[in-house]
Amino acid sequence: MVAVTIWNEFRHEREDDAVAAVYPDGIHEALADVLATDHEVRTATLDEPDHGLTDDVLESTDVLLWWGHEAHDEVADDVAGRVQERVLEGMGFLPLHSSHYAKPFKRLMGTTCSLQYREDGGTERLWVVDPGHPIADGLGESIELRKTEMYGEPFDVPEPDRQVFISWFEGGEVFRSGCCYRRGKGRIFYFRPGHETYPIYENEAVRRVLHNAVDWAAPTEGSPRTFGERA
Amino acid sequence: MVAVTIWNEFRHEREDDAVAAVYPDGIHEALADVLATDHEVRTATLDEPDHGLTDDVLESTDVLLWWGHEAHDEVADDVAGRVQERVLEGMGFLPLHSSHYAKPFKRLMGTTCSLQYREDGGTERLWVVDPGHPIADGLGESIELRKTEMYGEPFDVPEPDRQVFISWFEGGEVFRSGCCYRRGKGRIFYFRPGHETYPIYENEAVRRVLHNAVDWAAPTEGSPRTFGERA
Amino acid sequence: MVAVTIWNEFRHEREDDAVAAVYPDGIHEALADVLATDHEVRTATLDEPDHGLTDDVLESTDVLLWWGHEAHDEVADDVAGRVQERVLEGMGFLPLHSSHYAKPFKRLMGTTCSLQYREDGGTERLWVVDPGHPIADGLGESIELRKTEMYGEPFDVPEPDRQVFISWFEGGEVFRSGCCYRRGKGRIFYFRPGHETYPIYENEAVRRVLHNAVDWAAPTEGSPRTFGERA
Amino acid sequence: MVAVTIWNEFRHEREDDAVAAVYPDGIHEALADVLATDHEVRTATLDEPDHGLTDDVLESTDVLLWWGHEAHDEVADDVAGRVQERVLEGMGFLPLHSSHYAKPFKRLMGTTCSLQYREDGGTERLWVVDPGHPIADGLGESIELRKTEMYGEPFDVPEPDRQVFISWFEGGEVFRSGCCYRRGKGRIFYFRPGHETYPIYENEAVRRVLHNAVDWAAPTEGSPRTFGERA
Repeated sequence: MVAVTIWNEFRHEREDDAVAAVYPDGIHEALADVLATDHEVRTATLDEPDHGLTDDVLESTDVLLWWGHEAHDEVADDVAGRVQERVLEGMGFLPLHSSHYAKPFKRLMGTTCSLQYREDGGTERLWVVDPGHPIADGLGESIELRKTEMYGEPFDVPEPDRQVFISWFEGGEVFRSGCCYRRGKGRIFYFRPGHETYPIYENEAVRRVLHNAVDWAAPTEGSPRTFGERA
Repeated sequence: MVAVTIWNEFRHEREDDAVAAVYPDGIHEALADVLATDHEVRTATLDEPDHGLTDDVLESTDVLLWWGHEAHDEVADDVAGRVQERVLEGMGFLPLHSSHYAKPFKRLMGTTCSLQYREDGGTERLWVVDPGHPIADGLGESIELRKTEMYGEPFDVPEPDRQVFISWFEGGEVFRSGCCYRRGKGRIFYFRPGHETYPIYENEAVRRVLHNAVDWAAPTEGSPRTFGERA
Repeated sequence: MVAVTIWNEFRHEREDDAVAAVYPDGIHEALADVLATDHEVRTATLDEPDHGLTDDVLESTDVLLWWGHEAHDEVADDVAGRVQERVLEGMGFLPLHSSHYAKPFKRLMGTTCSLQYREDGGTERLWVVDPGHPIADGLGESIELRKTEMYGEPFDVPEPDRQVFISWFEGGEVFRSGCCYRRGKGRIFYFRPGHETYPIYENEAVRRVLHNAVDWAAPTEGSPRTFGERA
Repeated sequence: MVAVTIWNEFRHEREDDAVAAVYPDGIHEALADVLATDHEVRTATLDEPDHGLTDDVLESTDVLLWWGHEAHDEVADDVAGRVQERVLEGMGFLPLHSSHYAKPFKRLMGTTCSLQYREDGGTERLWVVDPGHPIADGLGESIELRKTEMYGEPFDVPEPDRQVFISWFEGGEVFRSGCCYRRGKGRIFYFRPGHETYPIYENEAVRRVLHNAVDWAAPTEGSPRTFGERA
């Protein structure tokens, strides 16, 4: 079983009734419910010591999901640095939705990770553009989300190693909404869907993607990363 | 000056009044008008001997534009092979619109180059997703085309080296509509816009892309391609 | 279990005593011995009807290994075309050593696949440059082959999706000797090691790579490739 | 003319007689001599205020060369951050040799940028593996450097957008010694050759690469990077 840790800022669920109505126990618990069916799942949140991401937790995590939104700056630099380091050693990393601005993701990308957005509750359709990718296993040709926030291009990230999804938005925009990267030995998948008031993670196809992405991002053995002076 | 050759099937302009009304002299002449302002331009068509693409023509061509639609199969295999070979040696190649099915493009890609389509005259918006790319020079954040044919994903091509444009379509689809490839020493840019009855090539931004793409695809010196047995 | 088919030209083993001494039953049988420990393995050879690659065989093959050398041109175009088509549908494809010139590989790449070579029996060291890749599972930092043929750059292939190995040769050359590609839904891994008179496939690390590559190239479910007119 | 700024740590030239013997005025002046023939060249060094990289200097720089070695940590974080930001806006960036560990490069890559090395004065041969790339303009099939330091794989960087050179080393290693990246609108070229005591920058082919790389990395217009809320 893949050892999954779900990290959540867990602020707006406690401060905003509209969010609490959708995610009464926090987005992390909703995601845990999705993944616990066939993974070993723990959660961690911003206001725990070390944000819940101690060395022990990170060392024993195969895949880390990340949800951040309004408090990216409160994540300590040294914790962000440890997450980055663990990804380079092989830990999978799945930043979701507004976590395009998460500190560890920005550090791993090296870019601003900025984008355009509009909170309009319009329809999104995620098209599979790489039908051979394991993250697309079991999907149809697209995933439709009836009410969501819009994210638009340009998305200031490095050209993905593989592009799995491209989103169409009712209001006229497109977005690269499923992006695969390798950094060091670690696999990274940025996945756009998710929102604090639209119940995106109840969508069956979105849940399937989360399962697929955890499996895809889980570490494999590989070969040694040996650096430094050589005899 | 870049030596440009514009190849056109030149059939539907002679057979179909609706097409002739838009392109009375053929699409090749319309494209030649666009590019002749600052390039040395020749044209070639399917029904000429060797389809107008003799060894001499190909040898002296820096960038070849290609428009094919209903007669892809009538292009002789040996001509398609010579085009492919010249691209590998460094000639730029710009297949337009329905030329995703052109023989030389399919040979260079190694895939079916299939896609979905709908002839509905809806709106297309091409988003620049790589704002640092020279093919986007001078553009705004997107190009809007009011009436066009839809092309939708999946587009069965190799993952592009660089993705410059992604199209949004009014009917709900997306498409990777500006795709850069290097094969051998040659640069290839597939550009989706164009149609035999919608006057797409009158659009100023589309014209700008054609100019930019010719400049981008023009051969550079590089280093020798030396193959075979080595002392 | 992954259904593996090993295709071999099977000519020089029957015509040349030096080759027969190393591979008395043919290279395909030596490769079959390597892979049969944990895969379902069949073989096919050039001189069988349809080169042993009937529609039935291809339909039921998950991963096809290919060894060709002196008779690439005798492979029928329609068989090469069916192999290409099956790869696009999802079949894994592993061209080995001199199979850089195999018809299906050249068709899938779209380039000449040419290179430099020297039959000098010098040492090769394959360095893992992507230590996180599953094809490198269980390897050390490099694989050393004491006596082998040299292949040198430039190697006229599209930029690989992932570069797993780069070879160093005693005589002063380098070569991209482990190249991953996706085409359609199919995974392709070109692997350089192998030779008709040096017993390369007895090397334990090379055998490990073959196992890893078969596992990596095996089809996954993905999503539908739907093409054509759309309602 | 491209506005080039050459940044140098400029420490070992002042502290070590062996280095001063090769680069009496500093490596930056030697590089300036190479590039001043057809570029507008300025220099900047670590011990100047703001390391010589004020906002004014960075704003008016098209391409920044970087040489660091023993004092990477003394580069202020805010200066490293401004360099990173300017690259994303379009400034070209050419980290040389030991600058694989430069702060701005590590920030842009998101990885450790570690490697193996050996100070053995052996021969290096840089093979052109992308003969169509403009950085290879005018070169032969390889560049030979008789005495140099060895850098070996694994090199912990993201898979390059384009690989131009791969090095062979006499002692048995290989290295990806010419790596192209785009980040934001900026072009980055890591180039391995260079050393504080071997006079690598006197080599004519290396000088040609520096000229080519400056031309390649110079900003182009592109399209706007517009981020934030959208109407």
